[in-house]
Amino acid sequence: MAPVTRLGEEMHALVERLYPLCRSITGDGVRATLDIVGEYVPLRVHEVPTGTQVLDWTVPQEWNIRDAYVADASGRRVVDFKESSLHVLGYSVPVAATLPLSELREHLHTLPEQPGLVPYRTSYYKPQWGFCLAQETLDRMPDGEYEVLIDSTLADGHLTYAEHVVPGQVADEVIVSCHVCHPSLANDNMAGVAVATFLARELAERTPYYTYRFIFAPGTIGAITWLARNAERVERVKHGLVLACAGDRGQLTYKRSRRGDAGIDRVMGHVLRTSGRPHTVDEFTPYGYDERQYCSPGFDLGVGSLSRTPYARYPEYHTSADNPDFVSPAAMEDTLAVVREAFAVLDRDRRYVNLSPYGEPQLGRRGLYEALGGRSDTKEAQMAMLWVLSLSDGEHGLLDVAERSGLPFDTVAAAADALRAAGLIKA
Amino acid sequence: MAPVTRLGEEMHALVERLYPLCRSITGDGVRATLDIVGEYVPLRVHEVPTGTQVLDWTVPQEWNIRDAYVADASGRRVVDFKESSLHVLGYSVPVAATLPLSELREHLHTLPEQPGLVPYRTSYYKPQWGFCLAQETLDRMPDGEYEVLIDSTLADGHLTYAEHVVPGQVADEVIVSCHVCHPSLANDNMAGVAVATFLARELAERTPYYTYRFIFAPGTIGAITWLARNAERVERVKHGLVLACAGDRGQLTYKRSRRGDAGIDRVMGHVLRTSGRPHTVDEFTPYGYDERQYCSPGFDLGVGSLSRTPYARYPEYHTSADNPDFVSPAAMEDTLAVVREAFAVLDRDRRYVNLSPYGEPQLGRRGLYEALGGRSDTKEAQMAMLWVLSLSDGEHGLLDVAERSGLPFDTVAAAADALRAAGLIKA
Amino acid sequence: MAPVTRLGEEMHALVERLYPLCRSITGDGVRATLDIVGEYVPLRVHEVPTGTQVLDWTVPQEWNIRDAYVADASGRRVVDFKESSLHVLGYSVPVAATLPLSELREHLHTLPEQPGLVPYRTSYYKPQWGFCLAQETLDRMPDGEYEVLIDSTLADGHLTYAEHVVPGQVADEVIVSCHVCHPSLANDNMAGVAVATFLARELAERTPYYTYRFIFAPGTIGAITWLARNAERVERVKHGLVLACAGDRGQLTYKRSRRGDAGIDRVMGHVLRTSGRPHTVDEFTPYGYDERQYCSPGFDLGVGSLSRTPYARYPEYHTSADNPDFVSPAAMEDTLAVVREAFAVLDRDRRYVNLSPYGEPQLGRRGLYEALGGRSDTKEAQMAMLWVLSLSDGEHGLLDVAERSGLPFDTVAAAADALRAAGLIKA
Repeated sequence: MAPVTRLGEEMHALVERLYPLCRSITGDGVRATLDIVGEYVPLRVHEVPTGTQVLDWTVPQEWNIRDAYVADASGRRVVDFKESSLHVLGYSVPVAATLPLSELREHLHTLPEQPGLVPYRTSYYKPQWGFCLAQETLDRMPDGEYEVLIDSTLADGHLTYAEHVVPGQVADEVIVSCHVCHPSLANDNMAGVAVATFLARELAERTPYYTYRFIFAPGTIGAITWLARNAERVERVKHGLVLACAGDRGQLTYKRSRRGDAGIDRVMGHVLRTSGRPHTVDEFTPYGYDERQYCSPGFDLGVGSLSRTPYARYPEYHTSADNPDFVSPAAMEDTLAVVREAFAVLDRDRRYVNLSPYGEPQLGRRGLYEALGGRSDTKEAQMAMLWVLSLSDGEHGLLDVAERSGLPFDTVAAAADALRAAGLIKA
Repeated sequence: MAPVTRLGEEMHALVERLYPLCRSITGDGVRATLDIVGEYVPLRVHEVPTGTQVLDWTVPQEWNIRDAYVADASGRRVVDFKESSLHVLGYSVPVAATLPLSELREHLHTLPEQPGLVPYRTSYYKPQWGFCLAQETLDRMPDGEYEVLIDSTLADGHLTYAEHVVPGQVADEVIVSCHVCHPSLANDNMAGVAVATFLARELAERTPYYTYRFIFAPGTIGAITWLARNAERVERVKHGLVLACAGDRGQLTYKRSRRGDAGIDRVMGHVLRTSGRPHTVDEFTPYGYDERQYCSPGFDLGVGSLSRTPYARYPEYHTSADNPDFVSPAAMEDTLAVVREAFAVLDRDRRYVNLSPYGEPQLGRRGLYEALGGRSDTKEAQMAMLWVLSLSDGEHGLLDVAERSGLPFDTVAAAADALRAAGLIKA
Repeated sequence: MAPVTRLGEEMHALVERLYPLCRSITGDGVRATLDIVGEYVPLRVHEVPTGTQVLDWTVPQEWNIRDAYVADASGRRVVDFKESSLHVLGYSVPVAATLPLSELREHLHTLPEQPGLVPYRTSYYKPQWGFCLAQETLDRMPDGEYEVLIDSTLADGHLTYAEHVVPGQVADEVIVSCHVCHPSLANDNMAGVAVATFLARELAERTPYYTYRFIFAPGTIGAITWLARNAERVERVKHGLVLACAGDRGQLTYKRSRRGDAGIDRVMGHVLRTSGRPHTVDEFTPYGYDERQYCSPGFDLGVGSLSRTPYARYPEYHTSADNPDFVSPAAMEDTLAVVREAFAVLDRDRRYVNLSPYGEPQLGRRGLYEALGGRSDTKEAQMAMLWVLSLSDGEHGLLDVAERSGLPFDTVAAAADALRAAGLIKA
């Protein structure tokens, strides 16, 4: 990875601001998160009422929490929500009680094999309450009575998500989606949120070819809500990327869309391969982040997922060790750089038709071919023009040309520009 | 291979009973064979008259034989049909003569490179007579006059074959075909007959999805006769398997149908691969057993062939060394186990349509998804449900799901059952 | 490679005769070349006037040259066109001047990294003049005044190309094209011309299936002219081969057509692979010889290119080292042998339909199958018949049969002949 620039530091600073908030699939944590992102790029925030039918699902009650703790007989808080939002089981129903450790235990979640870490656990659709804590903490808790308090509310309210749109030359869209429902976990997914935010800011500096839509929504129910409310827009979504686990120090992993050969799959594969970065390309599986929803068979969108180390493949995953130290400014910059390059290819990968397809057109007459013949070193730019002419039969795009010729996409795109300016090809 | 159970011993006992009979493409040897098989499973026996036109062929005259020998000057039988049915050239015309060894020699067939073994030879369509014997026997025969007798008849009669049908839930059929025309050869093909017989008995214990038709017929002309007489049924044959050389101690070999990617090809490949057995998969060739006929281009059925060591690849092939000792109860059990497993996959490999294809359906609400979120160990059953939902687009079957997901077929089929019960998919 | 026969010596003698001529894309050098080729095979010579529009190009003025030299102050010719036609920049405009070495230098072309060799350079479409010489020669030229003379003419005239046609049983054509525009370069392309010439002579000895058309034309503009004047014929061109660099001692290289799987691609791949020759098969690129024109997307003909070492991959390429010693009689014979074999396959690779596709036809009745059954050694000829019957479904040709069965094409073609004679298949 290249040395860190100011961009990496800025993204990391955003992760640090967002990290402490207690997010869930609904509630004020999500709103606070979107408020901060909104300081960087303008957001359109949507509030969808509890009970709204969204595809096969129903928007649940809104969950908010003010305090939660387990206190020992002396009144000392041995588990304290104020220290980390991970300490409470997500969507816990309220509780205020005193009970012996033996009864309390069935509400306590630990990681016996990672005894120093606090796990991340939720119970969105089954009402229960619980605490998450380090096994080491539990081991130190003597038998006896404990006071437990979860000062939460589950009540009719709203599900909150936001969009930022960078208008393009065409109405066809590329979506970038990241989940904003995980509490104090840095790589999963505040790093993804930070990369998306700064990417959106960059894209807005020019008018891209496609319209780029950034979706910040809670996982699963948020993507499902967006899909339910955008049934007609979905047809315009030509490509998409789910960004998750975008900041750890591992190598990049691209997970293909369900289609396996969608435009985004080909572009990401090309960019990762030609960039020389060590990387992994995974086939689609119906588990993971919100690509599950975008790629469900009814939609079957060309949406892949970019991560560094994918979910569940690093020991810090869904634990208190996924903190801001775990994500690196350089890694986030590297993730952003790859997406930037991929979108530059996506934006220029078009099919042309050779308007002079019978024999080669006389490039020399048009100043596109060097005059001196017989030399054995043929320039890349010239080869790129010959390749574009050869493959511009309406069935091949510029990425096809780059892949088949082995030439850099930029060279191919420049050749296409020159040929189009000379009237030899048209889109 | 697993330890032998009673099933293996029973199959071997059947091979031993069938082995001595002098079978040919017509005649009482076939009838006696079918009588014995009929003690295990009910058979419908067909008798097709000599002269009947069957596709490009004509049912030949029926051949029967009572005795045959070569006796030396002292009257001692040096080659005796009563010792082994291999000793006479199959379909020999009758002869009773005395002639010198020099003339006799052109009627004697031996294996000079396997001097202790008697070869199996026939001459179905060119009238001639002959004896098969060990080269060692021939070497011990002094010059001089020999009496030869072949007490056979070639006369108008019938070609005999039999069927056993296990009715299924649908009229679409799976055929299992094995040749019953080879005389005293155990692996080729009494082992195949035994495996088919016990498989038929097993299948009848339940009502399978497909209708399973077992065909016991002489090679080539028998399959051709069946095809000629079942022109309209052929369209209902969805899958099929020719069983041959099913009992030797070698590893299993599956030979693909002419199509190469028929359902049976995919199922057999999957079962052999996932079972962990060492095995071989061969491409189709137009030589071999009756898959030649079922896969002829006019029919082009999805019929493959399962053997252990395929024909002509073992030195005992078509010799007196292919005797009951050459086939093993464990090997026949193993062959049967693989076919059993393959048919279990065939029977359940259906295409479903996801009735809730837009986004994931809410499995938790239906009790199909665990309530506690955030854990990184996702259960196989749950993954299988997500895969079935993802691929149930009308184009993929459950075997596709198993292959693409890497999950066991049984797990996938169970997931499909659960989803169907929940009304989320339909066939 | 096999030992050289008279054929190789004859081809080499033709190369030696053609080598000294000063060819270019127009002019008397081409005419003299075609005159000599015409002594071996009858040619139809075409003269296309300057200014004729041919596809996107225009036939240029005709270039002829009588003398050219650079003489030093003493009058000694230090660079002399009469020594080698390479010494003058192809299509040089006339010049007669005296100028200092410092000014002369910008008209001199050398190969600093191959200081003993004279390069081949042209300037067809930009009017300029120049000389090509060894760097060593230039290094020996003292400063001072030099007299330069190029006694050339550029004037309205004609572009010249020639055709030789071997009529076949059908009007569908195979074209063999080689460029005749390079001056004193032996491998590039007088070796190709010689191989094409002797191939044409051989083909005329029988009536092939296809009509074979040999095109001897200047590179690029010649092929473009031919295509422009044969718009209606192009549809009849089923296969084609560009012959270039056909005589060096390197191994054979076949470059696929743009389609990549055209008939010629499959045939050349098959012949090279089954011949056991070390060889290379390259994918199509839109650079090279006149396959560029034949394979331009509007035509997209099934035309590949056969070379030994391809252009620009040998250090002698486009230098004075590409002289008759660089090409070998044995190599030209070997090139010719491969093309001969490939055309023999092309000519016989047809699709048949099995007229008895239901079951196997009874080959024995027709004398096509051995009478004695049970043997494990099945003859190749018999296997070839079964394969032809199996695959003759109207979708597979005899080359498909050879490739899938692994049998030699000749055996397969002979089997098809026998089956056709027996009325079992038809074309």
